[in-house]
Amino acid sequence: VTLPENLTREQRLIELIKQITAESLIGDDCAMLPGRRLVSSDMLVEGKHFLTGMALGDLGWKSMAVNLSDIAAMGGTPEFALVNIGLPAKFSSREFRLLYLGLHECASAYGTRIVGGDITGSDLLVISITVLGLAHPLCLLQRQDAHAGDLIVVTGDFGASALGLALMREGRCGDPEGAYCLARHCRPQPRLKEARLIADLTGSCGAACMDASDGLADALLQIAAASKVAIEVDAEAIPVEAKTKALAVVLGLDPLELALYGGEDYELVACLKAPLAERLCQTGSFKIIGKVAAGSRVILSSLAGWQKTVDNKMTFQHW
Amino acid sequence: VTLPENLTREQRLIELIKQITAESLIGDDCAMLPGRRLVSSDMLVEGKHFLTGMALGDLGWKSMAVNLSDIAAMGGTPEFALVNIGLPAKFSSREFRLLYLGLHECASAYGTRIVGGDITGSDLLVISITVLGLAHPLCLLQRQDAHAGDLIVVTGDFGASALGLALMREGRCGDPEGAYCLARHCRPQPRLKEARLIADLTGSCGAACMDASDGLADALLQIAAASKVAIEVDAEAIPVEAKTKALAVVLGLDPLELALYGGEDYELVACLKAPLAERLCQTGSFKIIGKVAAGSRVILSSLAGWQKTVDNKMTFQHW
Repeated sequence: VTLPENLTREQRLIELIKQITAESLIGDDCAMLPGRRLVSSDMLVEGKHFLTGMALGDLGWKSMAVNLSDIAAMGGTPEFALVNIGLPAKFSSREFRLLYLGLHECASAYGTRIVGGDITGSDLLVISITVLGLAHPLCLLQRQDAHAGDLIVVTGDFGASALGLALMREGRCGDPEGAYCLARHCRPQPRLKEARLIADLTGSCGAACMDASDGLADALLQIAAASKVAIEVDAEAIPVEAKTKALAVVLGLDPLELALYGGEDYELVACLKAPLAERLCQTGSFKIIGKVAAGSRVILSSLAGWQKTVDNKMTFQHW
Repeated sequence: VTLPENLTREQRLIELIKQITAESLIGDDCAMLPGRRLVSSDMLVEGKHFLTGMALGDLGWKSMAVNLSDIAAMGGTPEFALVNIGLPAKFSSREFRLLYLGLHECASAYGTRIVGGDITGSDLLVISITVLGLAHPLCLLQRQDAHAGDLIVVTGDFGASALGLALMREGRCGDPEGAYCLARHCRPQPRLKEARLIADLTGSCGAACMDASDGLADALLQIAAASKVAIEVDAEAIPVEAKTKALAVVLGLDPLELALYGGEDYELVACLKAPLAERLCQTGSFKIIGKVAAGSRVILSSLAGWQKTVDNKMTFQHW
């Protein structure tokens, strides 16, 4: 099988796995098992997904949150989690406790019970979590359900997490100007409630949805590819917090680039019929950023007159 | 809460987790969720659980096998697996394919579908697998169900895996004399069929059972502690293959020490009423090695007249 040129390394390996396993359930944020059970698993590795010095309570929270976000991406409700930890010998019981309290705090906040896992020695801190949940009774939100004419909605705002990471890299974790971005990086909120709202509203019609873990651009590209559609986004409509914009200017970074390619915002990106998109926006938790069209490209247009094709050469990758 | 002195680091951290989560499902090989669903998760880290140069097909097989073995330990049937891989940048697609073929081969051999997971960058190769399955309709085999008067049965034989590892450490992977021990180390067989046989036979009475992943001594100690019983084992009754004994002598190692403390045999250790234990032995897949008594110690006796108390200071730990 020849693969398209423009796949990331992860996407290529996933294609290889699909060939080996001949498994139809692989490829979205979660697998759906019989009984409308959802299951998803994600691994975080020191130095790749988090900096070595990150506060351990934050790290615990974030590790759980990104896994719950995969259940949110499909409109489901998490129930149980298993947590595997590869723990360097230098970790004290006190440090382990801080990490675990963060894991438990996030799980509890979203109604999820930690029911098992494994702890083992490792030269790097590794946290691998599996979340089990239930799909919405009416529909499963999948990447492949975008149709020409749909509007694109997003939750929250973009770019703040990447800026928080940039601050942490410079050792500026206590910077009061950066508090918003640091919090967005360290304590992401899985959009479970918002995802259920989408599923409640669309019912059995469904909607395309995913969580923007690797940046807004990646999410749009994944939906466009899975749904075989084009996506047109208004650059000015992408929500970026004023605090993010101000701090980006200070650091000499482009807020739009951060929003598109920065990653780790864990906001929802969904495509659904215009009247439903507008009703979602009335809740105050969603914003329309563009529309779905026939074709295959993801195009970003500005009121300033320019237009760009977004490709995944630049998307955020945990490598 | 004050913890007993003689706990391993892993056991201490598990106690801490139980305090934080107040979760009753934590502590056995698997958690049982509503609907008699079993779930278990285990992580393997390069340099701790496997040598860097291990053949990748073997590593894939073994990683899956040790997870399926946790389902076997409780008498269940595996159905689905999620595989998370932290992959060093130097891995080629060809190497990844070999690893995944091993994972898939083992999963398929035991009727398990790989339905998802995560691949991410990591400086160390890390494989974290979650297996979902169903408990036996009549009973759940747990560590806590041993009673004074029960006999102790085991599957297979012990000590070969540790000897295989010793050979690999010396670079003797092609040693024809070591073929049996190397195969036992690289391609362990999860005892799913044998565990179901125990569950079929005991029915709703149940039996104590676990898989000896960290050595026979550790399994006996865990069962004794969970069931609040003493265990008396006949040293000469512990099955050790002639090939293992012969090779141990050549390498200057004690076969009994290897059997007790070597680890990674993934055989079942079960305690059940004498008539049932004897019926299991008639199948040819089980051997009686001792009996359960009142008390709390694990005692090893030899026909040669000596007697030892087994403690977990010496048990195999993946640290």
